[in-house]
Amino acid sequence: MQRVTLLAGGVGGAKMAEGFDALGDVDLSVIGNIADDAAFHGLWVSPDIDTLTYSLAGRIDRAQGWGVADEALRALGVLGELGNDTWMTLGDRDFGLHIYRTHALQQGQSRSEIAAHVAQVFGVKSQIILPTDDVVQTRVRTADGWLSFQEYFVREQCQPDVLELGFDGIKAARPTAAALNAISTADLIVIAPSNPLVSIDPILNVPGIRAAMAAASAPKIAVSPLIDGKVVKGPADRMMTALGLRADALGVAQHYGDLIDTMVIDHADAALVGPINALGISAKCAQTLMKDLGDKSALASAILAGVR
Amino acid sequence: MQRVTLLAGGVGGAKMAEGFDALGDVDLSVIGNIADDAAFHGLWVSPDIDTLTYSLAGRIDRAQGWGVADEALRALGVLGELGNDTWMTLGDRDFGLHIYRTHALQQGQSRSEIAAHVAQVFGVKSQIILPTDDVVQTRVRTADGWLSFQEYFVREQCQPDVLELGFDGIKAARPTAAALNAISTADLIVIAPSNPLVSIDPILNVPGIRAAMAAASAPKIAVSPLIDGKVVKGPADRMMTALGLRADALGVAQHYGDLIDTMVIDHADAALVGPINALGISAKCAQTLMKDLGDKSALASAILAGVR
Repeated sequence: MQRVTLLAGGVGGAKMAEGFDALGDVDLSVIGNIADDAAFHGLWVSPDIDTLTYSLAGRIDRAQGWGVADEALRALGVLGELGNDTWMTLGDRDFGLHIYRTHALQQGQSRSEIAAHVAQVFGVKSQIILPTDDVVQTRVRTADGWLSFQEYFVREQCQPDVLELGFDGIKAARPTAAALNAISTADLIVIAPSNPLVSIDPILNVPGIRAAMAAASAPKIAVSPLIDGKVVKGPADRMMTALGLRADALGVAQHYGDLIDTMVIDHADAALVGPINALGISAKCAQTLMKDLGDKSALASAILAGVR
Repeated sequence: MQRVTLLAGGVGGAKMAEGFDALGDVDLSVIGNIADDAAFHGLWVSPDIDTLTYSLAGRIDRAQGWGVADEALRALGVLGELGNDTWMTLGDRDFGLHIYRTHALQQGQSRSEIAAHVAQVFGVKSQIILPTDDVVQTRVRTADGWLSFQEYFVREQCQPDVLELGFDGIKAARPTAAALNAISTADLIVIAPSNPLVSIDPILNVPGIRAAMAAASAPKIAVSPLIDGKVVKGPADRMMTALGLRADALGVAQHYGDLIDTMVIDHADAALVGPINALGISAKCAQTLMKDLGDKSALASAILAGVR
């Protein structure tokens, strides 16, 4: 059994997690992103962790890549009638989870305990680990001021130019023992093809996580979320450009820098192998676009093969 | 316009409210029962007020008499999977309302304000008034100890013998100005065919309500929830017997005593006219079983006709 620890956020992270989870000889721990978390209608919603859980449980709505299959919007419809904002689409099954989580938090359970219980009940065999049990929330500064991540991502559909990113609460956040342990005991550490700035950085920037990564003896491989300078889903490319980074696999490699040994890039980016190698990071080409479970587990296998 | 103030709890109360609400020349205020309220999954549920609201809004599930039409149980299903108790059936649309209410309470709105907003949004033309904005909760003592009302009513399906009733918080509860005003300014005060012990008493026993009733100049008419000693729905008959009351219309009249001038009883109970009159309460016969809206408004009309 190879112990793989995956840092993952968003839909790309969930897909990569599914790829490793589907392999028989991998003991997978996924450290998810909690900086997208926010309260909606007084309930605590954890979009990235839920996307991970729903994906690994086989409950995900495959057509949209998030949310639950066989979902309906009765509760949200009533909330909308009564005057609440409903731009954040929350289905009825999903509300069941948010109600459960909020109630469990009120009863003193930690976010980690809740996430682990949900994953276990839903039949997830991999470990879903939170980087911190404290509240960390991504903020996005636009010309109109600071937005919460979901306001930027869902309500404004990533349209405003991003001037600055912040992670409220991150300086005071304490890493979970499970996250530190998953990093220090891994045979392989993988950074999923997630948005480096708003999915991975809020994990890495929890005090203690980056140091644990640096101290870990395992190889560290990042998969580029950008293929030919374009993102599969989400605003990573525009956001990287706006914040002065190269919006391509080289830019991702530059961003992670010393933290990683190896960068897996798409065959379409073969021309970037040289420039990435020049950073002291070993670039390897693979098919990184994951359309189905076969693609996901093939990419996971290629990553494992590359370091065995 | 005749100003009618109705004290109402449960399904019988909601049916009577619908009867008056359907009449064109009535300005109806319904003072509902909040002592069935309880937290489920961390959300504040107000079953009697919601049954009233859903009934007057035409959203009620007619087949069962409570809950919302076109309902589904996706959220509750997830809560059950995750280990929460699900004996209290809460549908997804219903959860939308409970989420709204809980969030609005957290933001400092009163229960009355919330109930009024929901009724207005849902298109209820009558006024839905709470007897108090404080928390009052019915407790039922059985051989196994004290139960909350919903534990007794829903979870245990009224099977345990009732040894004692209590209303937690009622001594410290303050009546709402709207309830006192609806009583003092009414042209007619009606006590609905609801359970006297657990639907009407928790309204009357809010400090100030009984005195306002006594001081009100309007005629006060109670409708018996018992027909031929049997209840249409619920445990009123068994509960009255267990607590040493006569389980028939005469027992209801004895229970309300001086508080009412007139008792409307079913034709089937014509033999009780004499004994009720002997209490100093004028007994009138009518068809009190309400199967459809015609029955409901006919009973409401009969009540109005009896005092005009």
